[in-house]
Amino acid sequence: MNAIPTPSKGAATRELILDHAYQLARHDGLEGVSIGALALGVGMSKSGVFAHFGSREDLQLALLDFVSTRFIEFIKLPALKHPRGLPRLRAMIKNWSEWGHIHQSGCVLLSAAAEYDGREDGPLRERVRQQQSDWRNEIKRAVSLAVQVGDLRTDTDPAQLAFEIYALMLGLHHDAGLFGYEEASHHTSAALDRLFASCQP
Amino acid sequence: MNAIPTPSKGAATRELILDHAYQLARHDGLEGVSIGALALGVGMSKSGVFAHFGSREDLQLALLDFVSTRFIEFIKLPALKHPRGLPRLRAMIKNWSEWGHIHQSGCVLLSAAAEYDGREDGPLRERVRQQQSDWRNEIKRAVSLAVQVGDLRTDTDPAQLAFEIYALMLGLHHDAGLFGYEEASHHTSAALDRLFASCQP
Repeated sequence: MNAIPTPSKGAATRELILDHAYQLARHDGLEGVSIGALALGVGMSKSGVFAHFGSREDLQLALLDFVSTRFIEFIKLPALKHPRGLPRLRAMIKNWSEWGHIHQSGCVLLSAAAEYDGREDGPLRERVRQQQSDWRNEIKRAVSLAVQVGDLRTDTDPAQLAFEIYALMLGLHHDAGLFGYEEASHHTSAALDRLFASCQP
Repeated sequence: MNAIPTPSKGAATRELILDHAYQLARHDGLEGVSIGALALGVGMSKSGVFAHFGSREDLQLALLDFVSTRFIEFIKLPALKHPRGLPRLRAMIKNWSEWGHIHQSGCVLLSAAAEYDGREDGPLRERVRQQQSDWRNEIKRAVSLAVQVGDLRTDTDPAQLAFEIYALMLGLHHDAGLFGYEEASHHTSAALDRLFASCQP
């Protein structure tokens, strides 16, 4: 294996800008990211920011990819250490709940889904739709594996179960933000236990 | 009974402003409502709008109440015609799904929950929390009635079931906006059927 290359100055600056954009977007959503506020925050001129991202939309697209990569690294990769089947699916959901807890005051990916779900077609809406579709497919795949190894019944519909798991994670995020994490987490766990019990052979 | 009084000119103007604010908020959320855009939209001066609402926050609070009243009128009142118990609870959920379908491109109440769930305490966050809590209590009450009339098992936990129903409605809204209403509605119905079946005596 080669040593990990040191990122160039350009790549490091790009990362710095994205990191700051991420902080802005956590509070005000993707639409709240302005090149002006961003330039001010990282101590660059607007044209300096534009040198790294050709347009505000390019920056917003790069930010979506940046957060999505973090999300997958946080949730999926550590779950791969668990045996395939229900333990791995459960581990993914546990990490996902933890992500929700950390981002209780605003998850950029979830806010983006709400920001763009009703908008007209365009690159941002398409990227959000693609990311959400990719993530749903990851859950479906984990469900299918659990069926294959015999942890879930063979008549389990992966798309249906993935939808229900996703809905519960939305419920967790919603209730945690308004009524507190503890009660929300308790309700979510009980619902997941019942859901998995109903699919067990 | 007295005849319904004709609303005063002041009340009618107030209604007109709120209706326009509602259109703005459907697209950009409660934080997207500005007195300037509103004044322009209804053909009044900014001070004219301020004469009806003392501040932007007062207007946002009035708007939340305005939408909440519409929501209850749309969902709860028609459901009261159905027999108490599971038929009434099912009717509420059917109307709620229909509300979600109509407001697929953005529901002001749901957006407000996402906008204020992570904010610091303040009148807007408190109003959102209170409205969400009131609505959850309505669902719990409908579940309790269904238990009382024997449609659901006596060990059914109304808070748990209300959380799961709410989560599924969030899932419906999320998926409908990104992947289309039909598939989302199919998944939601299947999930509700299983959920209610698991609580039946």
